[in-house]
Amino acid sequence: MAEHVIGIDLGGTETKIGIVQEDGKIIEKRMIPTKVFEGRIAVVTRIGDAIEELLHESGMNSSDVIGIGVGSPGSIDHETGTVLFSPNLPDWSGFGLAAMLEKITGIKTFIENDANSFILGEWAFGEFKGSQHMLGLTLGTGVGGGVITHGMLMTGSMGYGGELGHTIVEPGGPLCGCGSHGCLESLASATAIVNMAREFSKRFPESLIFASPEITAKVVFDSARAGDLAATIVVERATRALATAISNYIHVFNPEHIIIGGGISKAGDLLIDSIQKKMPEYVMPSFNGTFSITLSKLVENAGIKGAASIVFYRIS
Amino acid sequence: MAEHVIGIDLGGTETKIGIVQEDGKIIEKRMIPTKVFEGRIAVVTRIGDAIEELLHESGMNSSDVIGIGVGSPGSIDHETGTVLFSPNLPDWSGFGLAAMLEKITGIKTFIENDANSFILGEWAFGEFKGSQHMLGLTLGTGVGGGVITHGMLMTGSMGYGGELGHTIVEPGGPLCGCGSHGCLESLASATAIVNMAREFSKRFPESLIFASPEITAKVVFDSARAGDLAATIVVERATRALATAISNYIHVFNPEHIIIGGGISKAGDLLIDSIQKKMPEYVMPSFNGTFSITLSKLVENAGIKGAASIVFYRIS
Repeated sequence: MAEHVIGIDLGGTETKIGIVQEDGKIIEKRMIPTKVFEGRIAVVTRIGDAIEELLHESGMNSSDVIGIGVGSPGSIDHETGTVLFSPNLPDWSGFGLAAMLEKITGIKTFIENDANSFILGEWAFGEFKGSQHMLGLTLGTGVGGGVITHGMLMTGSMGYGGELGHTIVEPGGPLCGCGSHGCLESLASATAIVNMAREFSKRFPESLIFASPEITAKVVFDSARAGDLAATIVVERATRALATAISNYIHVFNPEHIIIGGGISKAGDLLIDSIQKKMPEYVMPSFNGTFSITLSKLVENAGIKGAASIVFYRIS
Repeated sequence: MAEHVIGIDLGGTETKIGIVQEDGKIIEKRMIPTKVFEGRIAVVTRIGDAIEELLHESGMNSSDVIGIGVGSPGSIDHETGTVLFSPNLPDWSGFGLAAMLEKITGIKTFIENDANSFILGEWAFGEFKGSQHMLGLTLGTGVGGGVITHGMLMTGSMGYGGELGHTIVEPGGPLCGCGSHGCLESLASATAIVNMAREFSKRFPESLIFASPEITAKVVFDSARAGDLAATIVVERATRALATAISNYIHVFNPEHIIIGGGISKAGDLLIDSIQKKMPEYVMPSFNGTFSITLSKLVENAGIKGAASIVFYRIS
């Protein structure tokens, strides 16, 4: 029988849990509300219950899985399995999440930051699986980063590393949630794209952006695709920030693959093409042909698969 | 008897060669002109002769050293010991430098880019030796970078990685030698500092900078130290670029130590203090207290020691 692990994509609103085979196939999954407001004990207990049900429905028991992997927002100490700090999980700072899940389930548990989990998912199950040099960017509410270099997840001395979203690409640019100005996150996250679009309400009141009942990153990209000027300016600014940042990462890490995921990656060709065409302006010619920039193809189950891959990475 | 290695600091103008003990003590050294114009065979032959003389003078022979390490400018493929590309060593592209030195001397030879060699020197012999997470910046004619992460020299998929000097910190900034605009190198190298100072000749003709027969980075720092306005503006711009770049590296690598070397590091306290005071503007509070920024203390023999450390790193 193939080896199985449980992958948990822990989110601020909902949590996805799945039983995943070593080939990446999900044999059973479910989504439960996280209900952070009920407190961390209630949250973890509910996750434990869901795991038990999933195993039961699959005719398995806890000894049939080799581990649990949790992809969690925030800063994670993967060595102790502790949530250090997470804006989306208030009051979880210092919480020994792995230890508690292990106690409830009897299954060895590993935790990583969700952006690290994303790139591990690509390493284990993605289009370029097994590549020793990969970078992942997750473009969502924020911008997350994960780096595999020389076959190793790069986390730095305290486990805080890989904060690719908080590298400055436009000094004096928009205020970032981190307190600095012009970080990649302040220009290329969904939040940033919506903010930049809103700023155009006076200059371009007729823009398609403002014809929509709610301004979202999707509305901005769809409007740009339809030829809207304000939306095009926003997309150009966001993708210029991405091209600048990605070229920096290329010079620093010399990766084989840069993989983009997260909600904004659904913008598809427009996103990738806008980045690609700006790269020659920034990348040194000696790096030509050394890298690819693509969208993640795991999309739907990227969270569960990424979380599951943590176990395969740590145990391999 | 302690283990000995030979360290070769190969420069475009001069080459320093030393016999180094595993504790970093240099027991014999010399400097020879590189004479690149005579061709690579002549250069390597001359280095071979110098090694033979050094060994003879020390009462040693080739079997008494465990390896030769060469710190070379340019892009190096350390696996094959080949110079891939080096602006300072024209016509060396594709040259199997390690193989030829091995053939001449009978001693196992390892090569690294000089900035990688710098950080390996710090790892082996520096103030923070043994740290698993260190970054090195060499501020000279250009800006070189070397990264040790998780105890490993980070070189990337093709060995091109670690180009910290070619990360963009000021989009639309000065043209860089690499063809891009606003790279760290275009703002913080000696060349950049001299260029920025020259641009002030009309605005500040009375500046101390222009009282000197030759404008050098040292003249600019000395003038700033004496309170000169134009020089202070240049130092502020260069150190702002450094602070921005270093904060980016901190977020990406979560290093314990950032170590600055190269000719400009002789500017000492003014350089470090100007960088330090700008860091809180850029670094996320969660990283407070996780890093140090210091000048290399190996200065005089950093080149030879760095080169020697390549052997200890590869053999250990």
